[in-house]
Amino acid sequence: MNKVPIDFPELKPGTVWLAGAGPGDPGLLTLLAHHALGQADVIVHDALVSEGVLALRRPGCGLEYAGKRGGRPSPRQADISHRLVLLARAGKRVLRLKGGDPLVFGRGGEEALALVEAGVPFRIVPGISAGIGGLAYAGIPVTHRDTNSAVTFITGHDLTGAVPERLDWDALARGAPVLVLYMALKHLDRIAARLIAGGRPADQAVAIVSKAATPDQQVLETTLGRCAAEAEAHNIEPPCVIAIGETVRLRAGLDWLGALHGRTLTPDPLRLRRDREAG
Amino acid sequence: MNKVPIDFPELKPGTVWLAGAGPGDPGLLTLLAHHALGQADVIVHDALVSEGVLALRRPGCGLEYAGKRGGRPSPRQADISHRLVLLARAGKRVLRLKGGDPLVFGRGGEEALALVEAGVPFRIVPGISAGIGGLAYAGIPVTHRDTNSAVTFITGHDLTGAVPERLDWDALARGAPVLVLYMALKHLDRIAARLIAGGRPADQAVAIVSKAATPDQQVLETTLGRCAAEAEAHNIEPPCVIAIGETVRLRAGLDWLGALHGRTLTPDPLRLRRDREAG
Repeated sequence: MNKVPIDFPELKPGTVWLAGAGPGDPGLLTLLAHHALGQADVIVHDALVSEGVLALRRPGCGLEYAGKRGGRPSPRQADISHRLVLLARAGKRVLRLKGGDPLVFGRGGEEALALVEAGVPFRIVPGISAGIGGLAYAGIPVTHRDTNSAVTFITGHDLTGAVPERLDWDALARGAPVLVLYMALKHLDRIAARLIAGGRPADQAVAIVSKAATPDQQVLETTLGRCAAEAEAHNIEPPCVIAIGETVRLRAGLDWLGALHGRTLTPDPLRLRRDREAG
Repeated sequence: MNKVPIDFPELKPGTVWLAGAGPGDPGLLTLLAHHALGQADVIVHDALVSEGVLALRRPGCGLEYAGKRGGRPSPRQADISHRLVLLARAGKRVLRLKGGDPLVFGRGGEEALALVEAGVPFRIVPGISAGIGGLAYAGIPVTHRDTNSAVTFITGHDLTGAVPERLDWDALARGAPVLVLYMALKHLDRIAARLIAGGRPADQAVAIVSKAATPDQQVLETTLGRCAAEAEAHNIEPPCVIAIGETVRLRAGLDWLGALHGRTLTPDPLRLRRDREAG
């Protein structure tokens, strides 16, 4: 670290910061979130916040778990919001820490509105979303000049846990050339079938990135037609971020993390593929 | 800052880190990017990297400008990539710093592939993209439970500077309920017209956020039908990120930055609107 001071705002007693912790690597924390970890009296975190991130909290800072995880009862969203209000009213400096970014399928907006209703001051601290930064750790760009001028991020389940039905899946299939799915492992068979029915090629490249940007990161390269069956066959574990589209093929050139461990990268994977297809 | 050390990788001589600087606020830098600023011999940056971020470089670190900005000649992409290779081959520790995230309409993939071709080792360091973090500083969530299970990010111009023609604009209009446009100010009239022709309501809420997450941030709330004319009437300056969809209305409740300066927030802006529409 260099020594130039930054004029950070203070996490004041009686206030809440809703912050993103990024996909896993503590190096992907923002300076602001890191600053808040050093100031908070209590951290209310979800299951996706890594141990390495929580280890950066100041000594004596309390930890409260408020996430959904197999085998444990899940607190209701209203209960979490209520808890944040109570802690702030008790004069605590509260850090609400979520995996990724709090406003990307993170329900940060709901919690913030509950704070507004209770008159509790708050700040939103964006984080690196897994759909961008997690894929970057797998060597997959969400956009690339030769492949796409648009990318769509979709959550794989709605509030009831089912595939979101209000979405126009045909339009999504025909829209952005790259789709990124969050929390979609459970319903991947149905989502893939809807996208193929909407015109997406069954042989389109797919990457399933499990535990992105953590030491346990695993990447399964497959296709839209086979992805659900292969995820099951390989016992892929959540959390996953799933990329669908030609950018996935760039991984052969951009897997910098693999290269650090000896993988040889291909300078132009898309040209290679075009040449092959041309015979 | 607290004192727990993080085991950061070293930015080694002869290597390049392609890093995102976030939308503007130096507090939105990642710890890894901040670490690299303290190690680099030279930083090759674009116009969107803020002065506050560059001020965090170590004393003696060189600065090279490689961005597009009005009035200055724009270096060609191939020249930038070539320059990165030359600097690395000269044994420098090179930090290639881009506004936002290097892989979200940032051409980071192209530069990385050029490094692979030249045999230069590299690392990709994700950043907070303006389409997520910049909008958060305007109090606009890119996703929200009541409004959208999907969001699409679109660049407003292709390589030639024109509106991307390969995109299916009708499908994009009908797909994700929230659209986020990057670099779209110049062609906003044509893009808005295409989205309306594709079925998007002309009275849909739009926010144009200029210089997001900087001290000069400006937010114009408007509608799809009027946004291009109003942007011109208000002399809105680039860079802008533009949000289209009902989440924009949540700003009345979530403009935390405005609240820090005295704005009174509305606890439930969407309910308020539904009640009004119900008469």
